[in-house]
Amino acid sequence: MTAQTHGDIRVEVGLGARSYDILIGEGLITRAGAAIAARLPGVRAAIVTDENVAGHHLDLLRDSLEGAGIAHTGIVLPAGEKTKSFPALEHAVDAVLEARLERGDIVIALGGGVVGDLAGFVAGIVRRGMRFVQAPTSLLAQVDSSVGGKTGINTARGKNLVGLFHQPALVLADTAALDTLSAREFRAGYAEVAKYGLIDRPDFFAWLENNWRDVFSGGPSRTQAIAESCRAKAEIVARDEYETGDRALLNLGHTFGHALEGAVGYDSARLVHGEGVAIGMALAHRFSTRLNLASPDDAVRVETHLKAVGLPTRIADIPGEMPGATRLMDYIVQDKKVSRGALTFILTRGVGRSFVARDVPPSEVLAFLEQQVGP
Amino acid sequence: MTAQTHGDIRVEVGLGARSYDILIGEGLITRAGAAIAARLPGVRAAIVTDENVAGHHLDLLRDSLEGAGIAHTGIVLPAGEKTKSFPALEHAVDAVLEARLERGDIVIALGGGVVGDLAGFVAGIVRRGMRFVQAPTSLLAQVDSSVGGKTGINTARGKNLVGLFHQPALVLADTAALDTLSAREFRAGYAEVAKYGLIDRPDFFAWLENNWRDVFSGGPSRTQAIAESCRAKAEIVARDEYETGDRALLNLGHTFGHALEGAVGYDSARLVHGEGVAIGMALAHRFSTRLNLASPDDAVRVETHLKAVGLPTRIADIPGEMPGATRLMDYIVQDKKVSRGALTFILTRGVGRSFVARDVPPSEVLAFLEQQVGP
Repeated sequence: MTAQTHGDIRVEVGLGARSYDILIGEGLITRAGAAIAARLPGVRAAIVTDENVAGHHLDLLRDSLEGAGIAHTGIVLPAGEKTKSFPALEHAVDAVLEARLERGDIVIALGGGVVGDLAGFVAGIVRRGMRFVQAPTSLLAQVDSSVGGKTGINTARGKNLVGLFHQPALVLADTAALDTLSAREFRAGYAEVAKYGLIDRPDFFAWLENNWRDVFSGGPSRTQAIAESCRAKAEIVARDEYETGDRALLNLGHTFGHALEGAVGYDSARLVHGEGVAIGMALAHRFSTRLNLASPDDAVRVETHLKAVGLPTRIADIPGEMPGATRLMDYIVQDKKVSRGALTFILTRGVGRSFVARDVPPSEVLAFLEQQVGP
Repeated sequence: MTAQTHGDIRVEVGLGARSYDILIGEGLITRAGAAIAARLPGVRAAIVTDENVAGHHLDLLRDSLEGAGIAHTGIVLPAGEKTKSFPALEHAVDAVLEARLERGDIVIALGGGVVGDLAGFVAGIVRRGMRFVQAPTSLLAQVDSSVGGKTGINTARGKNLVGLFHQPALVLADTAALDTLSAREFRAGYAEVAKYGLIDRPDFFAWLENNWRDVFSGGPSRTQAIAESCRAKAEIVARDEYETGDRALLNLGHTFGHALEGAVGYDSARLVHGEGVAIGMALAHRFSTRLNLASPDDAVRVETHLKAVGLPTRIADIPGEMPGATRLMDYIVQDKKVSRGALTFILTRGVGRSFVARDVPPSEVLAFLEQQVGP
């Protein structure tokens, strides 16, 4: 029995020899064994997960692999961003080697973005590259981090500065897993869904404006929204796998967002990644208006939708004291998307009309930030 | 002034978009700046090297980069195999990030195989992949480890179990650097030179039998031997970049060799890698004779040449107590080239007629080893 018989949606990421399927559907974790056995016959597996996710899904996945005759071992890491570190990487690498897995075997990432980024990195470097299956359990991971092959860890100098492009062999997005998320986590993931509309899918954004309630409540629109997000990302990744050009579009809202995350010291009580992206997208639209690229109506429209779903849209929405414009500028300059001193931003000419601007004058950014938060 | 005007030999590694040049010639370290500036204009550099090599060559390389206007930083690691470790990897990664290098900038590996393997890994993972230049200073690195993109570190479970395929953008093999090697180091590197003849270049092996004295004394044959070795390796790597087939031929002598290195606990006073490979190649030919694949004359011929240059050819040549056949078998089974329980060996039908044998019965290997060293 293959996964498709359950009415899953299949999205292909077209990367030549490295192409792979994303399956989106209800209960895919419990059907993972069959889906994997059908595509990757004879493999053994190491499941990398975290303590929180393990409680919800690990036994289901183990049973499913068991049922398909896939020998496996579980590697359970502490939950949280700190797991994207060199010590956790070394620990997970040792555990995979301990299980005597070989190059053709698989590492399965069961969890959110942290687990996926770390497990993908592990898979990319053990024996110079094992195969890799993503089983994303958060909305953010299902629509963003599990697709496209970016893996990595953080260092003292910043987030995601160390890692690899290592494409998965298969992504299994179980929409049932989203029921275990808090409302805040789901909302944060939704920011990345809305992002695809804002980048280059104006019809999708309009559809979200009309259907977001069904997406949030778990109706059929939810699966559709995830599938459309995966299609949007797959299309951009297929055009520019290694981010030498267009893929930077996926960073819409992220330069501002990362600066805000840095400014709160990555304190998730104050701001999680998706919330930073939501504020960042609102800022990117407002900034584009200031530069006379987009109409103020577009910035208002974006802010209205993000607010409607409960996402923050202004720096002042972040609880606690925030630094002024000059300090925020420091965070922006430190961001890895800075190339040779010129600032690269994703700007927009309106909803669904984003573009990569490679020479934004830092003085313009600073003046804009001063307008938002004072000097 | 480009490097070629000095009569360097150029060997191309043909890997499509990842193709690169190997330049082989006298004084290439002092001309590195010009060679890099000509091919990779505008880059900045981090030089990764070790304490021993830094004493001989670091100032020369720095002056050369300086002269070409290439901003650079030096990262000097302790010498020795222990540097191929997670802590050294993290240290070097942090140092490259500290220097604020970007994705288009380069990491230069100045040193032998340890430095090249580590620095290449660093380049492969900082910002998900920086460019990478090899400046190999040992014979082993010039003819083997600097070519083909294998990078990695060791873990408690074994050597090179963690790493990446990350091709350099340029290899600069300065034959003058070989004058700083000890006779023993040079000889050990020569084992890999002879290997290319034994794999699939019988004429090259015959040429080495006639010209090895000039190779060792530093005459023009030395540069020729290095170039021919690079050509041989480049050809195999171009056929099978990720070692899914033919590239395994490069492991001729290595399965036995690794087992012997393991058996002495990687004590380089007793056995260095190239010596292990020399004994391993002699064993592979003797084993092929035992399996009635090759004539005993070939095994004798190989042993005679390796002995002539001063390399060991028998397990008994290793100083100190060695384990028996059963214990050596354990080391072989632990080796990463074991796939699904079947033993993969590089066997031969004679000089220059090696092939990948994927299903060698362990009992045959054990019986052969018992013949060599007792039970």
